[in-house]
Amino acid sequence: MKILVDMDGVLADFDAGFLKIWQMLYPEKSFIPLELRTTFYVVDQYPAELSDLVRQTIAAPGFFLSLEPIMGCVNALTEMRQLGHEVFICTSAITFFRNCVVEKYEWVEQHLGKEWVKKLVISKDKTIISGDVLIDDRPIVAGCVTPTWEHILYDQPYNREVSEKRRLNWMNWKSVLFSAAA
Amino acid sequence: MKILVDMDGVLADFDAGFLKIWQMLYPEKSFIPLELRTTFYVVDQYPAELSDLVRQTIAAPGFFLSLEPIMGCVNALTEMRQLGHEVFICTSAITFFRNCVVEKYEWVEQHLGKEWVKKLVISKDKTIISGDVLIDDRPIVAGCVTPTWEHILYDQPYNREVSEKRRLNWMNWKSVLFSAAA
Repeated sequence: MKILVDMDGVLADFDAGFLKIWQMLYPEKSFIPLELRTTFYVVDQYPAELSDLVRQTIAAPGFFLSLEPIMGCVNALTEMRQLGHEVFICTSAITFFRNCVVEKYEWVEQHLGKEWVKKLVISKDKTIISGDVLIDDRPIVAGCVTPTWEHILYDQPYNREVSEKRRLNWMNWKSVLFSAAA
Repeated sequence: MKILVDMDGVLADFDAGFLKIWQMLYPEKSFIPLELRTTFYVVDQYPAELSDLVRQTIAAPGFFLSLEPIMGCVNALTEMRQLGHEVFICTSAITFFRNCVVEKYEWVEQHLGKEWVKKLVISKDKTIISGDVLIDDRPIVAGCVTPTWEHILYDQPYNREVSEKRRLNWMNWKSVLFSAAA
């Protein structure tokens, strides 16, 4: 099986990392608790007057590298490979790419090891990457072609309204991935 | 048509850039003139005792961003898009990724413009990227699957021994690309 795995919100805990830094830097400002997050992009759920500050926080040096691995993700990836599957990490860079791209490489090296760096694919359009499944927390993954993969949602509070796709987390991934497609 | 275009040796003049910096930094050391380059990797054609120095030169800050665009490449990419083709820039990062990845983004932004940054795909394995053709100077582009694309060689001195593939440069690309496959 060829398994594509998204990075932010699937391997790297973007939301928890953002909230932690946000509350540390701006303890007086409002914030959205993790379980109440309803939009895919964090910035879309914050008041408009805080948009620039949210974007700056995410684009700042060190943000992407500081993200914690989502519990169970390292074991899951290791096991996928041990089971003989081809695994690629498929991620997009943010528009302010300067810190983001290199830190995504550093993150993979640090948390998964050098061998996984070769499996990192950075592309805005994931439909052009071929695979059997794409595990991604984004409600809709669109692009210029009809993808070869089935999109399986990585379960997050902000994608719960999507009902027609299979969803998994790093606790139940094996039973979901290896059950028949919905 | 979906056209994948490699970056080093196709858009960015890696060999000329390397030689220029090498001769500037180490005027006393031996060098390989461009037309006598016979190996895909520059380092493989230099004496073993210079290997580390060659690798350091390539991994140094500023190297990738300093590369000149290969003459005609910007017009070719612009024209491909105007003709209605989907174009993606497909490049690999070197093992010492720290300067390389961000400078590839900066290079695209600087020489092709912001819109093209969204079309940049970084992947060690290009066989998993779907397309009709891949324009690449590497003699053999291998990976984990059979690619959907036809590999068309971007003509370079170091790939002249390959005879079974179509080859083009930015002067004749239209007639080659739009002629029937060999």
